[in-house]
Amino acid sequence: MAPVSMRAVEEKDRVAIDTIRFLAVDMVEQAKSGHPGAPMAQAPLAYTLFTRHLRHNPANPRWANRDRFVLSCGHASALIYAMLHLSGYDLPMSELQRFRQLGSKTPGHPEFGHTPGVETTTGPLGQGISTAVGMAIAEAYLGAHFNRDGFALIDHTIWVFCSDGDLMEGVASEAASLAGHLGLSKLKVFYDANKISIDGSTDLSFTEDVGARFAAYGWNVLHVADVNDLEELERAFAGCKAETERPTLVVTRTHIGYGSPNKQDSHEAHGSPLGKDEVVACRNNLGWTHPEFHVPELAREAFSQVPVAGAAEENEWKELFERYRRQHGELAAQFEAWQRQELPEGWHEKLPRFAKGDAAIATRAASGKVLAGIEGFLPQLLGGSADLAPSNNTFLKGRAVFSRSERGGRNFHFGVREHAMGAALNGMALSGFLRPYGGTFLIFLDYMRPAVRLAALMQVPSIFVFTHDSIFLGEDGPTHQPISQLMGLRTIPGLQMIRPADGNETAAAWRLALEAKGPTAFALTRQNLPILPLDAEKVHEGVRRGAYVVADAEGAELILIATGSEVSLALEAHQKLAEEGIASRVVSMPCWSLFEEQDKTYRDQVLPPNRRKRLAIEAGATLGWQKWVGLDGDVVGIDTYGASAPAKDLAKHFGFTADNVAARAKALLG
Amino acid sequence: MAPVSMRAVEEKDRVAIDTIRFLAVDMVEQAKSGHPGAPMAQAPLAYTLFTRHLRHNPANPRWANRDRFVLSCGHASALIYAMLHLSGYDLPMSELQRFRQLGSKTPGHPEFGHTPGVETTTGPLGQGISTAVGMAIAEAYLGAHFNRDGFALIDHTIWVFCSDGDLMEGVASEAASLAGHLGLSKLKVFYDANKISIDGSTDLSFTEDVGARFAAYGWNVLHVADVNDLEELERAFAGCKAETERPTLVVTRTHIGYGSPNKQDSHEAHGSPLGKDEVVACRNNLGWTHPEFHVPELAREAFSQVPVAGAAEENEWKELFERYRRQHGELAAQFEAWQRQELPEGWHEKLPRFAKGDAAIATRAASGKVLAGIEGFLPQLLGGSADLAPSNNTFLKGRAVFSRSERGGRNFHFGVREHAMGAALNGMALSGFLRPYGGTFLIFLDYMRPAVRLAALMQVPSIFVFTHDSIFLGEDGPTHQPISQLMGLRTIPGLQMIRPADGNETAAAWRLALEAKGPTAFALTRQNLPILPLDAEKVHEGVRRGAYVVADAEGAELILIATGSEVSLALEAHQKLAEEGIASRVVSMPCWSLFEEQDKTYRDQVLPPNRRKRLAIEAGATLGWQKWVGLDGDVVGIDTYGASAPAKDLAKHFGFTADNVAARAKALLG
Repeated sequence: MAPVSMRAVEEKDRVAIDTIRFLAVDMVEQAKSGHPGAPMAQAPLAYTLFTRHLRHNPANPRWANRDRFVLSCGHASALIYAMLHLSGYDLPMSELQRFRQLGSKTPGHPEFGHTPGVETTTGPLGQGISTAVGMAIAEAYLGAHFNRDGFALIDHTIWVFCSDGDLMEGVASEAASLAGHLGLSKLKVFYDANKISIDGSTDLSFTEDVGARFAAYGWNVLHVADVNDLEELERAFAGCKAETERPTLVVTRTHIGYGSPNKQDSHEAHGSPLGKDEVVACRNNLGWTHPEFHVPELAREAFSQVPVAGAAEENEWKELFERYRRQHGELAAQFEAWQRQELPEGWHEKLPRFAKGDAAIATRAASGKVLAGIEGFLPQLLGGSADLAPSNNTFLKGRAVFSRSERGGRNFHFGVREHAMGAALNGMALSGFLRPYGGTFLIFLDYMRPAVRLAALMQVPSIFVFTHDSIFLGEDGPTHQPISQLMGLRTIPGLQMIRPADGNETAAAWRLALEAKGPTAFALTRQNLPILPLDAEKVHEGVRRGAYVVADAEGAELILIATGSEVSLALEAHQKLAEEGIASRVVSMPCWSLFEEQDKTYRDQVLPPNRRKRLAIEAGATLGWQKWVGLDGDVVGIDTYGASAPAKDLAKHFGFTADNVAARAKALLG
Repeated sequence: MAPVSMRAVEEKDRVAIDTIRFLAVDMVEQAKSGHPGAPMAQAPLAYTLFTRHLRHNPANPRWANRDRFVLSCGHASALIYAMLHLSGYDLPMSELQRFRQLGSKTPGHPEFGHTPGVETTTGPLGQGISTAVGMAIAEAYLGAHFNRDGFALIDHTIWVFCSDGDLMEGVASEAASLAGHLGLSKLKVFYDANKISIDGSTDLSFTEDVGARFAAYGWNVLHVADVNDLEELERAFAGCKAETERPTLVVTRTHIGYGSPNKQDSHEAHGSPLGKDEVVACRNNLGWTHPEFHVPELAREAFSQVPVAGAAEENEWKELFERYRRQHGELAAQFEAWQRQELPEGWHEKLPRFAKGDAAIATRAASGKVLAGIEGFLPQLLGGSADLAPSNNTFLKGRAVFSRSERGGRNFHFGVREHAMGAALNGMALSGFLRPYGGTFLIFLDYMRPAVRLAALMQVPSIFVFTHDSIFLGEDGPTHQPISQLMGLRTIPGLQMIRPADGNETAAAWRLALEAKGPTAFALTRQNLPILPLDAEKVHEGVRRGAYVVADAEGAELILIATGSEVSLALEAHQKLAEEGIASRVVSMPCWSLFEEQDKTYRDQVLPPNRRKRLAIEAGATLGWQKWVGLDGDVVGIDTYGASAPAKDLAKHFGFTADNVAARAKALLG
């Protein structure tokens, strides 16, 4: 098959574009794995964007006001690596040659924090475009917060390339609906409409009218009939820039594996090397006579202005910022503090304290009090809920709602879109300035797992507020009662999961979350919990260490280990056992990962290795608790689904009573 | 606020509709929790559907050709309970009075298998409508398979009520796109457009043009301006029935909490009781003078024909079936066998066998061989992949693809829509006839967790084929490498998770899956694995028991426990240790839940309680393995993310080599 004609392309452009194509082809060929087809298709678009429209400084990939580029179709990673290399980022050719090898800067899918210039980790489809929605939110909020007359400190565009697969994923639908609702006009998405999916033609599974769908979401929709027509592309970019009310989708007709005589427009170009013979055929077809991994002089020339222009743009911005500093010194200082992820001195003194005599309080409500206490001092703290604000206690009273007309709002109505919320939080956190949080019921973690996982993989400080964390949510029943979710959160590497036992543990949890570099998930109760009979200081210190002794007795052989709502139950059982002359220790273990990070001495103090009569109590799956109770201990947990009933009836039915815990403890003692 | 006028309503209808409303109000009031607003809004629609359009027989909720009713907005459960009671299902008033109480038939959200007439468990938003897509697929497939000239054995409609929340969820978007693509015209969805979400007006978060969006998916879109106008509703039903090419969405304007003077059209009517005073006000407003939980004679009369007509319809169908049996005896027998979930005698003899000398084979490829071996004998077995068919080995070669024009196809291209695939499989399984399977990479389990959980909660026999089950997928890197997913599957109550170690274990796994009443998930490798040096029979027996000894040595103190790809690694280490004079036992543990179900004698044979030097080996999170190795054992696992590199390099990097396993074993022995 002959390639589609490349009209309106000057020789320099043509060479530069084919350079991108063959770098991608060579990377995949050398790695013996990867995805050549999408880079070959999207090369003209990437070229046009990187050399003519993207405002970025390859010498400083962290410039605050840079445009963002998100390759939502992360499998096309060879494309972004080629672009970063050619544009002058710190990504030498030797790294391109080590594509998909252990320790290289060019992993199979782009990874944030690993490769300079990669703005977010992509590969799980739909995440990139959805994270980009969060980036556009951050741009709008930061602009509203910092910009002043004559000082457009924050004013940049979020450019996204995405694929059929991205747009088939539900998370992208949720995010696109949210973006349309919010009128995030800085978001510009190019949809690589290549009409091919892994199974074959998209006619097999994807025949919806994507443009009409996005128009229904309230997007500006443009069309490019031939991605190789640079003039047409330029018109699309002009159309993107002209739009200031709505996000823009550019449906861009491309040809997967463009230039490959036998694999173009076929799924065979998608996910494996073209193969030696086809590479030769492709070279012949496109008239490419250069050696592998070669960048011809014309191509270097085509990209030569990128770092120059980028440096100039950033310098201009720096001058702007210095003028801003002179006129708006306090704001400038805040800007820099946020950028350093610094919190104001003594902010944590605003955390509420709870004392033994205080009324019982649900940890979700305590969390609401924490937010109310600290939010005035932390305007970088912002968030919302997936349509459960009254239940999640996440609304900042007296603060505006972020909307199309109010960009300074700190309250977000994400809608019943947990997954998009998670991705948006990640995008907001990726700004490097903000501390976003989002709430839903713990059971609906399941709707947003890929975003939670990406937060942990990227180590961005998103805060996930999961309330209604056990069967004790009561009457809503099994569909809403998490069983495996607590343990599930603990198995995610790099995620700090905290299940606080009372108001003070909740305050301590928020402190840890806001001081963390990576993400945190809270598991909070719907129901009221008594305040633990300990000093708030001791509780804070205990939470900080992940686990600590909350009650003890001389010569206790028995250790009761619990989290969250079951800590006060353990204390009741401890009391009951004491009345029967049985000594026990009670350990609260709100954060397993922090406890594991403690030195052995501390861990052995809390859980002396030779004391094996250990009973764990948690209203969730038992699997995993054996890590602490071993083969000689026992677990009061739930390995079935819950039931719809008032919480008190459930406690009795599922054995979460002091009597039953005491009985199980005695059985353990034999 | 005065209620919206109820035009064109006869007295009997009005009373019947208000009966539904007040039953819901009373249920919620009595339970002191629940959702009154949606039932009050949707009552006219439910009334019209149940009395005039739904083809169902309350006396036999399992009639094969009944219409299906799916309450996707499961929080409106009081509505379906009221409808089932009034229609004559086995749901007495005493159960309505025990709404949301322990052990009642009326849990907070409708649960399949728990309440007669509930077709699928709903509550997690988006699941109902997406599961209904699977029901419509099943209807089409069963019709194509069984119907003959003059014998429309299977010809029914899937009616769905859904809410804003349902349509905001990504899974519904995926499913709607799929339904439009497949032209599932038997699917009729009424969207309860009440303009209210929990956070307040839908203007806060949901302003897209839902009708235009569904039109873009290829749906027929109708509008009802006033749900209380029964004539307008009738026109919509006529429009639904006239449409034979596309699924239909009826955007139905309703008023949440209809009739409640102070809470109608407010989110306050959504999720909590109206309250005593407001109930009085509501009664006054609607002129309702009856006692609580009362069904007036006029209402009984309005519903009186429902069981009569339903019984007549089923009887007519039974007569049709008897005529069918005479003309198409073999098909009729098959129909009944499928309905009994019976597999043909000796079907498992078609499972492939693998012998020690055979070439190494990836378990995903072995799974493909299993499908190829058995599919000819099991036409109720059908499925596909979320656009990874070539990787998941799920395509049935020589069989047609299910499409708009080929309803007998058994191969499904679900597109990059894992979540909709999961829900669709559940809907197909809920037909009671089919054995559906769906494939994707294990990492993308995260995209479809809510559907997997519902399969387990409902105990429907969906089969989830997860391939690329560890870091050993290689170059795609951390974004694609599951770490916590294996353990995550094990924490889901009621899900049979099997990670087979070779070809024979894979065949045994499929046998277990097809004999199971509930769902099964497979974790299969991308990479080749040697065939275990055991008789296929012994392997089958071992897998059936969840765990078994695959190698042993006289006096072995050390036990190596592994699953999947790590079993052959354990065998290598066993051999290496033997060469050094260290005796060990190797246990393959493909299915933890089955092992737990074995009697203690067997479990103690496999893992003798006093042998505590146990080393687990699995390329995933270590958390959870302590269940078997306790505090004195060790785990070779991965508690970080993976890396992008060839599998062999990763094995070395992450310690999955015989040398390292042997070294760790020796360290354990001390």
